[in-house]
Amino acid sequence: MTSTSLDIVAIGDAIVDVFATCDDAFLEERGFAKGSMRLLTTDEARDLYAAMGPGREVSGGSAANSMAGAAALGLSAAFVGQVADDQLGAIFAHDMRSLGVKFATPLIADPPPTGRCLILVTPDAQRTMSTFPGASHELTPAALDPELIRSASVTFLEGYLWGPERPRAAMLEAARIAHAAGRTVAFTLSESLCLGDRRHGVLGMIEAGTVDLLFGNEEEVRHLTGCGDFAECVESLSKHVATLVITRGARGAVAVESDYLVEIPAAPVERIVDTTGAGDLFAAGFLAARCRGRPLRACLETGSIAAAEIISHFGARPEADLKELAGL
Amino acid sequence: MTSTSLDIVAIGDAIVDVFATCDDAFLEERGFAKGSMRLLTTDEARDLYAAMGPGREVSGGSAANSMAGAAALGLSAAFVGQVADDQLGAIFAHDMRSLGVKFATPLIADPPPTGRCLILVTPDAQRTMSTFPGASHELTPAALDPELIRSASVTFLEGYLWGPERPRAAMLEAARIAHAAGRTVAFTLSESLCLGDRRHGVLGMIEAGTVDLLFGNEEEVRHLTGCGDFAECVESLSKHVATLVITRGARGAVAVESDYLVEIPAAPVERIVDTTGAGDLFAAGFLAARCRGRPLRACLETGSIAAAEIISHFGARPEADLKELAGL
Repeated sequence: MTSTSLDIVAIGDAIVDVFATCDDAFLEERGFAKGSMRLLTTDEARDLYAAMGPGREVSGGSAANSMAGAAALGLSAAFVGQVADDQLGAIFAHDMRSLGVKFATPLIADPPPTGRCLILVTPDAQRTMSTFPGASHELTPAALDPELIRSASVTFLEGYLWGPERPRAAMLEAARIAHAAGRTVAFTLSESLCLGDRRHGVLGMIEAGTVDLLFGNEEEVRHLTGCGDFAECVESLSKHVATLVITRGARGAVAVESDYLVEIPAAPVERIVDTTGAGDLFAAGFLAARCRGRPLRACLETGSIAAAEIISHFGARPEADLKELAGL
Repeated sequence: MTSTSLDIVAIGDAIVDVFATCDDAFLEERGFAKGSMRLLTTDEARDLYAAMGPGREVSGGSAANSMAGAAALGLSAAFVGQVADDQLGAIFAHDMRSLGVKFATPLIADPPPTGRCLILVTPDAQRTMSTFPGASHELTPAALDPELIRSASVTFLEGYLWGPERPRAAMLEAARIAHAAGRTVAFTLSESLCLGDRRHGVLGMIEAGTVDLLFGNEEEVRHLTGCGDFAECVESLSKHVATLVITRGARGAVAVESDYLVEIPAAPVERIVDTTGAGDLFAAGFLAARCRGRPLRACLETGSIAAAEIISHFGARPEADLKELAGL
C-alpha cells in the first residue's frame, strides 16, 4: 500500500464566486427560488451579471471551499478541478495554493473560460446561486493523477460536479483508485442531484458501495430517499454508508455509524451575514477532526464551529483562525 | 455653454483591487513602508502575488472609488479610465455601470492586461498598496469624449494617474476642455506626486490655475509645499486654488476658501477594519454635498461620513446606504 502523504484530496468545481447583495424582489422577478442553485448558459450568465449590483470576487466551489477550510484547520490537502488559462483561473489557482492546498490540474487552453458562480445575498443572509460552470465541467478522468489519489487518506467528491458526464466519470475513477488503495471515499450531496429521476442514479451509486462517508443536509436526504420521516431517511441511508452525516441548519447535526447515532445542537452565531459555504465548511471541520483521530461527536462539533465561522461573514472561505477556534 | 447633464466626470486609474491580510513581518521582509503605494513591474507583481495570501477582488482605483461613492450619494457620475479586453476589465466595467456610473472608455485589445492593485491589510487596519497599473497607464487624450467633459459640472482628476506621461496629457486636455466650458476642475493629490523633484511639476500645474478644488491629506500637502508648519502649508496652497480641502485622519478635516477656514472633527467609527479608500470617499462626500449646493461645513461633514463608512469594512467601495447615512 502506498503511504499516505496527504490527509485529503477533493474533486470539485473550480470556480470564482461573484457576491452581490439584492432584495427579495430581484429574485422574485426572475423566478429564482431563494437558497437554490441553478446552472446558467453563457447568455443567461451575461444577462444576469448585467442586471446584478457591483460584485466582490472570491474563489469558490463547494469542495474547494472545503479544502480551503481543511487547510486552515491544519490538514494537508489537495484539490483537483478544471480552470482555464485566464485571469479568473489564475486567481483560483493562487487562492488555493496560497492556503497551502496542492493544486496542479493542467489548465485547458481553449474556451470555455473559468467558471463563475453569481451569488445573490438577500438581507436575510440567504444565498441564491446561479452557476456558469465554464471550464469546470470540462474535467475528464485524464486530468487525474492516480498517485495523488492513492496518497490521500480521504478522497472527497462534490455532488455539484456529479451532474455532467465527464466529471462524473473522473470522480468514479478516483473512487475506484482510492478504494483499490484502501482509502476512504467521502461524497457530499447537492440538492439538484436529489430531485426528480436523477436521485435514482445517486442512490444506485451509494447502494453500490462507492461512498464510505456521506454528507448531506436534511432537505437533500429527504429528497434523495423520498422518506417523509427523518428517522426513516437516516435508517435507509445509513445501511449503505459506514458514516452518515446530516446537517439540520439551526437544529444542529446528526451522525450515524452502524447502530451508533450522535446528535449535536448548532454552534451559536452572533449575527448570520451570508450562509454561503456553511455545508462546505461543516464537511471541512468534520473531516479535519476525523483525520486527527477524534471521536464522532468531536467531528460533528468541529464541523459546527467551522460552519458558524463561515456564516458570520461574506464569502465561503474562512477569515478567522479556524485551527485556533476548533482547538485542533 | 453646453448644459450640464452630469454632476461629475472623473479621470483615473481603472484597476481591480486584490485584498489580502498579512502581518507586519511580511511588509518588513520586503521593505514596504506601511501605508504607502508603490508601482510594480510585471515580474514584481507576479512575485508579490505568489507570496500573498488568498485574495478578495473588488473593483478599485482612487477616482473610480470616488465615483462609486458619488453615485451611491445620488450624483450623476461618469468615469474615464483604461481597461483591457479581459476578465478583470469586464469586472471593472460591470461594477462601475451597475452603480449607475457612466463608463464608456474604449477597451484596448493588446497587452498590457487590466491593472490591479495588491493591497496588504495589516491587523492595525492600515493598507499598503502595490500597483501593477497595466492598461490603466495606456490612457491617452484620444480616449476622451470632449462632450462628456463639457456636460459635467465638475471634472475630477486623480493624482496617481498624473505620473505617467500620456494619462497626464489626457488630464490636462480634460482640464482645458472643462475650463473652456466654464466648469470646475478638481484634483486629488497622491503621496508619490508630492515627493522629491516631482512636486515642482505639481506645484507648477497648481500655480498655473489648472485646479479649482484641491484635495489632499496633511502629509501630502506638507511634502508638496515643503512647509513644516501646517498653517503655512494651508496659506501657501490656498492662494492658488478657490477651494482647498485637507483631511487629517483622526484629527478631522479642514477646508479653505479665500479667507474663510472651516475645521471639523473626524466622524466616529466603531471599529476601523481597513483604511483603503478613506480619502477617495471623503472626496466623494464633499463633492456630493457641493453639487447639491450645501455650504462648506456641510461638504466637509458629508465627506467625513462617507470616509467613516468605508473604513469600517474591507474594500474601498461603499456597502451601506450612503445617501441615507449622509442625509442627501
